[in-house]
Amino acid sequence: MPLETDFPQGYEKRDFRVVGKRPVRPDGIDKVTGRARFGADTVAPGMLHGAILRSPHAHARIKSIDTAKAEALEGVKAVVTRDDFPIHDAVKEDRGLLDILVNCMAREKALYDGHAVAAVAATDKITARKALKLIEVEYEVLGHVIDEDLAMAPDAPILHDDLGYDYGKGKPSNVAGRTEIGHGDVDAGFAAADRVVERSFKTGAAHQGYIEPHACLANIGADGRGELWCCTQGHFMVRDTVTQLLGMDVSNLRVTASEIGGGFGGKTAVFIEPVAVALSRKAGKPVKIVMDRHEVFRATGPTASASLWVKVGAKADGTITAADALLKYQGGAFQGSPVDMGAMAAFACYNLENVRAVGYDIVTNRPKQAAYRAPGAPMAAFAVESVMTELADALGIDPIDFRLKNAARDHSKSSYGPTYNEIGLVETLEAAKATEHYNSPLGPNQGRGVACGFWFNFGGQTAVTLNVNLDGTAALSVGTPDIGGSRASMCAMAAEELGIDYDDIYAIIGDTASLGYNDVTDGSRATFASGLATIQAARQVKERMCARAARIWGIPEDAVKWEGGAAVPSGPNAGDHAPLSFRDIAKMAGETGGPIAGHHEISAEGAGPSFATHIVDAEIDRETGRIDVKRYTVVQDAGKAVHPAYVEGQFQGGAVQGIGWALNEEYIYSDKGVLENAGFLDYRVPVASDLPMIETVIVEKPNPGHPYGVRGVGETSIVPPMGAIANAVSAAAKVRATEIPMSPPRMLKLLRENESAAKAAE
Amino acid sequence: MPLETDFPQGYEKRDFRVVGKRPVRPDGIDKVTGRARFGADTVAPGMLHGAILRSPHAHARIKSIDTAKAEALEGVKAVVTRDDFPIHDAVKEDRGLLDILVNCMAREKALYDGHAVAAVAATDKITARKALKLIEVEYEVLGHVIDEDLAMAPDAPILHDDLGYDYGKGKPSNVAGRTEIGHGDVDAGFAAADRVVERSFKTGAAHQGYIEPHACLANIGADGRGELWCCTQGHFMVRDTVTQLLGMDVSNLRVTASEIGGGFGGKTAVFIEPVAVALSRKAGKPVKIVMDRHEVFRATGPTASASLWVKVGAKADGTITAADALLKYQGGAFQGSPVDMGAMAAFACYNLENVRAVGYDIVTNRPKQAAYRAPGAPMAAFAVESVMTELADALGIDPIDFRLKNAARDHSKSSYGPTYNEIGLVETLEAAKATEHYNSPLGPNQGRGVACGFWFNFGGQTAVTLNVNLDGTAALSVGTPDIGGSRASMCAMAAEELGIDYDDIYAIIGDTASLGYNDVTDGSRATFASGLATIQAARQVKERMCARAARIWGIPEDAVKWEGGAAVPSGPNAGDHAPLSFRDIAKMAGETGGPIAGHHEISAEGAGPSFATHIVDAEIDRETGRIDVKRYTVVQDAGKAVHPAYVEGQFQGGAVQGIGWALNEEYIYSDKGVLENAGFLDYRVPVASDLPMIETVIVEKPNPGHPYGVRGVGETSIVPPMGAIANAVSAAAKVRATEIPMSPPRMLKLLRENESAAKAAE
Repeated sequence: MPLETDFPQGYEKRDFRVVGKRPVRPDGIDKVTGRARFGADTVAPGMLHGAILRSPHAHARIKSIDTAKAEALEGVKAVVTRDDFPIHDAVKEDRGLLDILVNCMAREKALYDGHAVAAVAATDKITARKALKLIEVEYEVLGHVIDEDLAMAPDAPILHDDLGYDYGKGKPSNVAGRTEIGHGDVDAGFAAADRVVERSFKTGAAHQGYIEPHACLANIGADGRGELWCCTQGHFMVRDTVTQLLGMDVSNLRVTASEIGGGFGGKTAVFIEPVAVALSRKAGKPVKIVMDRHEVFRATGPTASASLWVKVGAKADGTITAADALLKYQGGAFQGSPVDMGAMAAFACYNLENVRAVGYDIVTNRPKQAAYRAPGAPMAAFAVESVMTELADALGIDPIDFRLKNAARDHSKSSYGPTYNEIGLVETLEAAKATEHYNSPLGPNQGRGVACGFWFNFGGQTAVTLNVNLDGTAALSVGTPDIGGSRASMCAMAAEELGIDYDDIYAIIGDTASLGYNDVTDGSRATFASGLATIQAARQVKERMCARAARIWGIPEDAVKWEGGAAVPSGPNAGDHAPLSFRDIAKMAGETGGPIAGHHEISAEGAGPSFATHIVDAEIDRETGRIDVKRYTVVQDAGKAVHPAYVEGQFQGGAVQGIGWALNEEYIYSDKGVLENAGFLDYRVPVASDLPMIETVIVEKPNPGHPYGVRGVGETSIVPPMGAIANAVSAAAKVRATEIPMSPPRMLKLLRENESAAKAAE
Repeated sequence: MPLETDFPQGYEKRDFRVVGKRPVRPDGIDKVTGRARFGADTVAPGMLHGAILRSPHAHARIKSIDTAKAEALEGVKAVVTRDDFPIHDAVKEDRGLLDILVNCMAREKALYDGHAVAAVAATDKITARKALKLIEVEYEVLGHVIDEDLAMAPDAPILHDDLGYDYGKGKPSNVAGRTEIGHGDVDAGFAAADRVVERSFKTGAAHQGYIEPHACLANIGADGRGELWCCTQGHFMVRDTVTQLLGMDVSNLRVTASEIGGGFGGKTAVFIEPVAVALSRKAGKPVKIVMDRHEVFRATGPTASASLWVKVGAKADGTITAADALLKYQGGAFQGSPVDMGAMAAFACYNLENVRAVGYDIVTNRPKQAAYRAPGAPMAAFAVESVMTELADALGIDPIDFRLKNAARDHSKSSYGPTYNEIGLVETLEAAKATEHYNSPLGPNQGRGVACGFWFNFGGQTAVTLNVNLDGTAALSVGTPDIGGSRASMCAMAAEELGIDYDDIYAIIGDTASLGYNDVTDGSRATFASGLATIQAARQVKERMCARAARIWGIPEDAVKWEGGAAVPSGPNAGDHAPLSFRDIAKMAGETGGPIAGHHEISAEGAGPSFATHIVDAEIDRETGRIDVKRYTVVQDAGKAVHPAYVEGQFQGGAVQGIGWALNEEYIYSDKGVLENAGFLDYRVPVASDLPMIETVIVEKPNPGHPYGVRGVGETSIVPPMGAIANAVSAAAKVRATEIPMSPPRMLKLLRENESAAKAAE
């Protein structure tokens, strides 16, 4: 059944005029001059400041909340607690929505250190903070659990009485779900193997570490209608979620996305937005809430930490006979860790006859996880790619050759179900093998690692509108917030289609009242899906311009075609009239039928997965355990790089975040379950001096689902780093590193244990 | 040649469900609670305040401008003068644009008291005003002229050396243009008349008197791209004008229209906006300019003052044999008075064999006129309707009967060219004649007047977008700023079409980057043209919903029809599936093809003129000359009143503005050409205590150019009042009043002169 919004499928080979160039991004100058407006940069007359009271306990029953003293404080205009968030019908029927509601404002229990318990709106920030101290909350502290393996223990403190019956043998448990993918006969496969490697691994939770904390401004009127400005990856999602949580009509909230200082998946959820709207509604005034970094760490989503086991068997020639994985992801205090995507992604790079991956979704007394760049995939890839290299080493095969032998190829069946279309993994492996980097010598205490990575890439709902101006420039409104330069890519694609200059297009992120629904900027979907819709809208503009030319010339519409950026008469009418350029027709729009526009709404399919191969050289300081990344190369398939500089930026950014996750980033909890390193001084993200320049190789294997061949590129780049670095570190340290982060104390311990073991063996 | 955007023409008779009701306007609560954001309510971080230096002379050569001292003042960030407004190519080719440029910033000469000469942006308002005082301008004062008749005199000071050669016998003159309409043989018509009346008249200039002064905030970045928030009737016009004046790409300026505290035509032009953008560009900071009332009077457009002569002849039975008019309108210092529309409108209410109207467009040393509600028509109607009543009186015929005998009817040829479609003048006359008001007795010193009025009503360029939300509510984006409740009308029409509730639609005024081009909210076009586009967009939504239902049911698209607010299978498939409601389909949009939207761009035609008949009872105080309007009834054809309360509001508002213009409003100039009453204390608009409750009768003669029969209603209501009041006053005073405003001193003078003449005649 063809979809109304179906896009003509199939890559259209062409010479590009604008796409593939590296023009300045439209938001660039605003951002470097400080003029760009981020979440906290919006104000409204009479605005109040909101602040949120957070639980100091990892797990506690909330026996009572007394807000009387806070409400009596001069300058306090509204206080909200769980009582102000009744469970509306839409929430009742949707566990996911209910969890969001409870995460935004605790009900019976505080489920983690930092869980929101009450909120205040006051005339200034200091008064708001003072008021928080006047709110009296009576807690009954309960036992807590932080670690995913401990949370699965039979005697673990239980977070939710209504979860996990299937796994708790009729009693509630912290196991919220189980997922399994695969095909073939894994046991038979292992039986056929000449060599089997199996290992267990642990990875820590890592925060997305975006520069800009969450910030929003809600302004709800006496009629219950209002506006919300916020820093988000998806303002339509914010609108739909907030209105459903608060029992509002969707049409009654207009949400505008600010510029965004990073998201990486962490801004695909709501945290403060429903609270700000509830406070504004109660106070009858605009309310602004801006998180501080401490709050960001304590109460917004990092990704899941994980406990992993992987077993792979192969023939002596390197052919894998079976692959098996068991993944346990804790996603904080609510169900919904990305273990399903982890299980699907685990072996996606390989063409396997017998494969299985089982995942468990675990709840713990930690903040509700949020998406983080290729959610679920990097941890699984860390374990799988570690085992793959160990197995290649055991078989004496070059790790790239081993992967090439088993790589997923065009039209091979994926481990998670679908059959691939045309994919670029083999091309990245071959390109990696050919790099100068891979063929260069290593220094003392250095090791080289490689790893592959996969990401699905999403399509999804997208609406775009393109309006032509009288001087032949155009305004493009897209609904996917621009976190990685997507406005530049959209302008390039629109200009490419219309035959006008890149600078002639002005792209904005349309607000929720101005544009049709758009899914969140996630899943590496924006350039692909908004790009598809942009191209289609531009093609509609060209069609309409041809119709105008036909009218001007007095010939049938089908006697006009678009060629070289102009309408030209064709067929029997060819040569009868001089071509009318985009600019000519734009100028005459008023007299020839009115404004000229193109629109497209789509539920985009055919995003086409992206694969990468990373090469890393790591050096270990055997005295301190410190790992130094000496050289790093990302080779990834972009399908078609619309703006190569931003593609390279995505490659580099993903690699750097992977390096941080691999080497230093982790959540440190006290024995009371209180987060002890909630700040960038103690939660150590890589800085420039920690890093080499990340080298990049863009492979372009066209995506058959996009006319230009575009694939999403944003997420795959974070999938290989942990595995690649672990392989390099293990080679340098001469011992297999199985725990992330490979921080100096942990590496030192590993080295010491290994030396002791070696000595004991002597 | 059918237009791509052609709307299915023809009135569709139907029973309305939402249209014709009186729901609360969507902007109502925001406006009464003070939350609505008007022009001056927007701020930006680091914002500067702009102020404008204005000429103190009515006519002067600007010999030099020295801004050095102002620039040196601490806190001053930019000063602009004529040197900052070079004449770009677009302006060179377009005299209208050049005039706008020169009006916004004087070049060689200051052309009126209040003409902008320089502008300053500073960190605060006081500094900006101080800086103005430090700007040294050397003027050479020239002779000036204020009155239209004096401006046509051979020895009048000449404003522009490059105007009026046709009328100045090879030399420049202040006559910028001449227009003539008509048909038949006027001289022969007068020769056939039994009775002829001719008279001369004068009307003063009247300001639109909107509550909100002009205000804007410009924010231009280092890349030359930026935004402008302003209070305007047409933000697309502002964008296009400002960018052309300043040599910017149209796409590089995003303009958002604020809520608007009245416009009445006066906000269809730019005054401060190009200055704010130029200052912002120069300062590299946001710049806000807010006019004070004094500036509004001195430097924004009132309507033209006029000198008029009308001659009408009729047979003894009341049949008009000829009508002639000579209209001289001064429109301030630049060409472009609405005398062309005055000439066209003068006799538009009458079905005439022999008719002529000649108009002269005169320049004087007064502010550039701007449109004011039915621009050009009220002055002409004042003169024509005065003569019509005088002629009816002379023939002993009731003034309504006289007008009925000669009224323009369905399919009669208009005096200005086109043949009317179906029009409602006769219906308003008959309804007026039947009112209790017209048949009630008068008191002592009272007179009753009637007059008719006509307005063309405009269509024009319009773009609308309608997006469906997941809960079955919808967002409607229209581009015509809402000055009279048009959002309520749009919501009603969208709800009517879609079969959902009025409250389920959230209407916004889309900014210039989000929506296709829209002409200004003027010519009474918004409800008609944006309404047409809204209805068409809603019909597109229904079509798309039917297509989704077809997909869900797996039946062909043409086997689904929209009925009773739901998609239902039809034909051979009738009854196969339960209907799918708007809400059902909205909820499934994501899975059935993506967002559902409707869009429509149109150059709307078929607006259909609106006619009115007004009845007024006036009482004269013979001691003071004061006129008291005792009773007032507006009878007007609305085609179909989408929201009757706002239609009545338009009727009442137009009548009240007409009363003010007729009785008290005028510009008083010193002998140096300086405006002496630039404020509401001295420029006297009517207040509540001056007025009776204005009674209204809505006639509904469907406009065949709109599916609901809608006609614009905003402007016709100001056309009859001056004539109707003059007729009432003349009856009460027993002497023909020919000068507007009929203020107490002028009326007293008229009474005294009349008494003297009567005595002399004794």
